[in-house]
Amino acid sequence: MTVADARVKRPVTIGLDIGGTKTAVLVADGAQRVLAQARGATQADTPAALLAATRRLVCDALAAAGLTAAQVAAIGVGVPGQVNADSGEVLLAVNLNLTNYPLGSALAEACGAPCLVENDARLAAVGAYAWLAARQPVRHVAYLSVGTGISAGFVLDGALYRGAHGLAGEIGHVVVEPDGARCGCGARGCLETIVSGPAIARQGAAVLPPPCTAADVYAAARQGHPGAQAVVQRVSGYLARAIQWLLMTTDVEKIVIGGGVAGAGAAFLDPILHELARLRGHSPLFQTMLRDDKLVLLPPDYNAGTWGAVRLAQQAIPL
Amino acid sequence: MTVADARVKRPVTIGLDIGGTKTAVLVADGAQRVLAQARGATQADTPAALLAATRRLVCDALAAAGLTAAQVAAIGVGVPGQVNADSGEVLLAVNLNLTNYPLGSALAEACGAPCLVENDARLAAVGAYAWLAARQPVRHVAYLSVGTGISAGFVLDGALYRGAHGLAGEIGHVVVEPDGARCGCGARGCLETIVSGPAIARQGAAVLPPPCTAADVYAAARQGHPGAQAVVQRVSGYLARAIQWLLMTTDVEKIVIGGGVAGAGAAFLDPILHELARLRGHSPLFQTMLRDDKLVLLPPDYNAGTWGAVRLAQQAIPL
Repeated sequence: MTVADARVKRPVTIGLDIGGTKTAVLVADGAQRVLAQARGATQADTPAALLAATRRLVCDALAAAGLTAAQVAAIGVGVPGQVNADSGEVLLAVNLNLTNYPLGSALAEACGAPCLVENDARLAAVGAYAWLAARQPVRHVAYLSVGTGISAGFVLDGALYRGAHGLAGEIGHVVVEPDGARCGCGARGCLETIVSGPAIARQGAAVLPPPCTAADVYAAARQGHPGAQAVVQRVSGYLARAIQWLLMTTDVEKIVIGGGVAGAGAAFLDPILHELARLRGHSPLFQTMLRDDKLVLLPPDYNAGTWGAVRLAQQAIPL
Repeated sequence: MTVADARVKRPVTIGLDIGGTKTAVLVADGAQRVLAQARGATQADTPAALLAATRRLVCDALAAAGLTAAQVAAIGVGVPGQVNADSGEVLLAVNLNLTNYPLGSALAEACGAPCLVENDARLAAVGAYAWLAARQPVRHVAYLSVGTGISAGFVLDGALYRGAHGLAGEIGHVVVEPDGARCGCGARGCLETIVSGPAIARQGAAVLPPPCTAADVYAAARQGHPGAQAVVQRVSGYLARAIQWLLMTTDVEKIVIGGGVAGAGAAFLDPILHELARLRGHSPLFQTMLRDDKLVLLPPDYNAGTWGAVRLAQQAIPL
């Protein structure tokens, strides 16, 4: 049996991305082919409601694929919170109303297959790495997600790097403006108060008519609106410096960028590249460390979260 | 043979720290006992002069230990520059006048023992990790060196993390003040323009009589000099935020701090802890991520560079 055969014959796995508002399910075979997908509202009122709604989505997706739970080798699960990846316990997931909850074992019982639980940002990094590694040889990658929040995840030496508490990459709450706006976390001037989707919309609301989303701000800037351009320049300056921090700290080969805000595509990326060019300006060091080709936009239709969850599940299966 | 016996019987190794101005040599046995030390000026005019001066120091140290080169299993070498750790080649070390130079093989021939070459900041991280790991169980550590320059190094999952180009932790040139002072690298407002020893001395010179060193600034601030206190507060604010970046990015258990500036001890550390306390202020997340006990000052008499070089050499020897 060739390696390709072995990959195809590896059993079916499921990737689950349980977000604060929506849950996405992806059923894949061992050759990374999509067998089915499903999506629905997250029911986070109680753990029982969460389990029931998640189970229903998994059953729907399996039915669409013409499969039963008995044919699923493992389920990877991403949640927005701090987890104990070894035990499958969710230590704290505020948006899911879970504290010290054994989600892995509970979901395994509800769905009839072994479940592995990981933080969603960490898993998205695995998914983004898998996407890039399928296209070019690469060992060290950071995934930068710019959406409702901003966070990073790392695959270093080809393996997920979690950190001591599974929090590596939680850069949204790094203070970049000590006297800046109050953040939801209680501090002032966190990166998230400037470059997240809601923060960009808030800054845009001062110069554009309501309702104003981050996408509206990028679109208006692209069309030459001076106020929107000023917001985008400010946001892009902070993003460029965060990208510099990530590159200088971790020396990854690539930073893959995704998340809802990055969905603006060139309108999002071009101003960041412009700021990086300014930083490179007079510094030979920066000219090697801050090259444009270190940044890669993830295609908006690639779901890094569910693919990362599929990879987590696949890694748990012996070949 | 017990593990302790095996450690003692592991052969002698040498740690070499070739700095821009001084070279330090440490001869150690397998139980991390110092057999001899030597120190001398680095001769960087030509590679031949560098080799000859280094060889002389190694011979002096071996003679002091009553040993010959034949009894040395391996030599670990730290240099201030970019290296290919696999080949032992120095790609670029400006202060040593070396470009694409096979330092490992050249030193091995000159000294009569196998040589392994690594960047000095990366090696100092290994040395700092070894120091801490001998005192408490720990897997993820950053070493922050604040001296003539500022840089970090990482031991993650118990192993040196180098990054794609051996540059992981080169945070001295992250831009923190886009319109700040011109840096030696050519950019403006690099972290190094504010928190390095020369930068602190420069800021101190505006408020203290010459000649003014970083140590003078810390001493004057400790004695209540308002101008010096303002400089220390500014420096400590930037250091605290750099420490926050390191913690949020890498989620290490501890940051060990060393380097010449950190030699000011409590006068150096207390203002940083004060700034961390301010950051913690209103944020439960920071209250767990930015705890005072995550920072550890390296004893000034512990040479992280040469001990890291010894560890590098030891790792190359099979037990």
